[in-house]
Amino acid sequence: MKPFSRLIRFESGGETFFADLSTTSEIPPAGSSITAYRTYDDLTNTQNPVEVAFGKLLAPLPRADLPIYCVGLNYRSHAKEAKLNIPMNPPVWTKPPAALASAEEDIRMSRYCASNFPDWEGELVFVTSRECRDISIDEAEACILGYTVGNDLSCRFFQLPAQNGGQFYYAKAFDKFAPIGPVLVSPEQFNSGKKTKLTTRVNGQVMQNVEIQKDRIFSPAQVLSFMSQSTTIPAYTAVMTGTPAGVGAFMTPKRFLRQNEVVEVEIDGIGILRNKIVFPDGQDSLL
Amino acid sequence: MKPFSRLIRFESGGETFFADLSTTSEIPPAGSSITAYRTYDDLTNTQNPVEVAFGKLLAPLPRADLPIYCVGLNYRSHAKEAKLNIPMNPPVWTKPPAALASAEEDIRMSRYCASNFPDWEGELVFVTSRECRDISIDEAEACILGYTVGNDLSCRFFQLPAQNGGQFYYAKAFDKFAPIGPVLVSPEQFNSGKKTKLTTRVNGQVMQNVEIQKDRIFSPAQVLSFMSQSTTIPAYTAVMTGTPAGVGAFMTPKRFLRQNEVVEVEIDGIGILRNKIVFPDGQDSLL
Repeated sequence: MKPFSRLIRFESGGETFFADLSTTSEIPPAGSSITAYRTYDDLTNTQNPVEVAFGKLLAPLPRADLPIYCVGLNYRSHAKEAKLNIPMNPPVWTKPPAALASAEEDIRMSRYCASNFPDWEGELVFVTSRECRDISIDEAEACILGYTVGNDLSCRFFQLPAQNGGQFYYAKAFDKFAPIGPVLVSPEQFNSGKKTKLTTRVNGQVMQNVEIQKDRIFSPAQVLSFMSQSTTIPAYTAVMTGTPAGVGAFMTPKRFLRQNEVVEVEIDGIGILRNKIVFPDGQDSLL
Repeated sequence: MKPFSRLIRFESGGETFFADLSTTSEIPPAGSSITAYRTYDDLTNTQNPVEVAFGKLLAPLPRADLPIYCVGLNYRSHAKEAKLNIPMNPPVWTKPPAALASAEEDIRMSRYCASNFPDWEGELVFVTSRECRDISIDEAEACILGYTVGNDLSCRFFQLPAQNGGQFYYAKAFDKFAPIGPVLVSPEQFNSGKKTKLTTRVNGQVMQNVEIQKDRIFSPAQVLSFMSQSTTIPAYTAVMTGTPAGVGAFMTPKRFLRQNEVVEVEIDGIGILRNKIVFPDGQDSLL
């Protein structure tokens, strides 16, 4: 089975395709011809290639129907700005499959979301390569298919303990609140051990800017090993690994997402996850 | 489309079948002949019936591959024993599909789970009848396919804030930690508005005993309406609606599940969800 270097998933004429950009980091222009595969297995086996016109980018996951794991408080700088203690283990929960969105996709928020303090969280995402359970930290590295970029969008009002009893799920589970992409980079290409910068910009202004390995508490292998204890983790599960300092809720004054703002999360060696935030009636928050 | 009265799902010869017990509340004995259907749609359309030998009961859900929703702090008596404030909205999170288990199934816990204070939570479960989003409380009633019984098994050690940063997901997501069954009762048969008793017994000893409608904070319709705001809830989603007072963690002295104990959760008009807890090496907790 041939591994990919930079995997994309995209839509063309109403169908879904997979392709390997190899060492290129450029997303093909719409309409350009590209060698692609109808399934992820076809791509890794290099069988049944087809030439199609590139359409619209989708989240670069072999399966898009699984719950997406989230990790909380995984950066020292973010735990500090949130004034929260670092727990013994990575706090984990999920977003539902309908939360998934793609790079370059407009995130069309309802009035309900627009009015409840939507905020960004730029994150490194990893995807599992096979079903796993009870794996050690040493074994976990070999269960990672690749790395990509995520934005753990959150309506901060619903993260208040008086609203939700302390459970983060609801505030982060809204449709399209998990943009992931643009490409899935193989571990060999990404080399997660090196110094990697994560930067989040809102309309060009740098909000988060961190060296991941320096600030992070639990590595992807540590997170996956912990998640898998007595728990079957399906192949192709995406895991958003937590956000560093610089979210809007902890700025002075607080600073939430506004109509037509563009959020860009960039990670060295992967690329830029770019999404425009669109409110339903073209109006900013009415609060 | 003919609705069912008391839906079961079961295994026979390695295949899965659906059947309607109608007004009987007796589960057929193993090996007895039963009129069944290969899919839930066949059952509701009364098409392609087959006569098969009843094998093993499965959780009575048209789809067993979806995240299962959980609701926290939804009974006044439980919020009181936990010394927690009642939030403005029902706290929601999920269990992964691999957590699903059936009535009468032995719950084989790993040493990891057995040693981290496994506890019971008897709960009323509802299942959605169709995909829904942004539904009002009035509309929600019509989106409920039926009611069944659940046990929101939880390893209490991992619910400590110092362990998980306050997120309940991990403590409750272990494989087989969501037994659901034995039957799914239609809303007409169940009549959720009436006085309904929920009782949990461990080895015959009554631990939880409550009149659901008297103690409960948010009704199934209120929970579903809240869950669906700006969030697509798939058809056939199971929702565990919270537990009343009487869990082991809040007893004096604390009282957790032991090797070979049988947990029975019984709800009037539905039946008994019975599971034996089996530890891996036949030994009790080593703590």
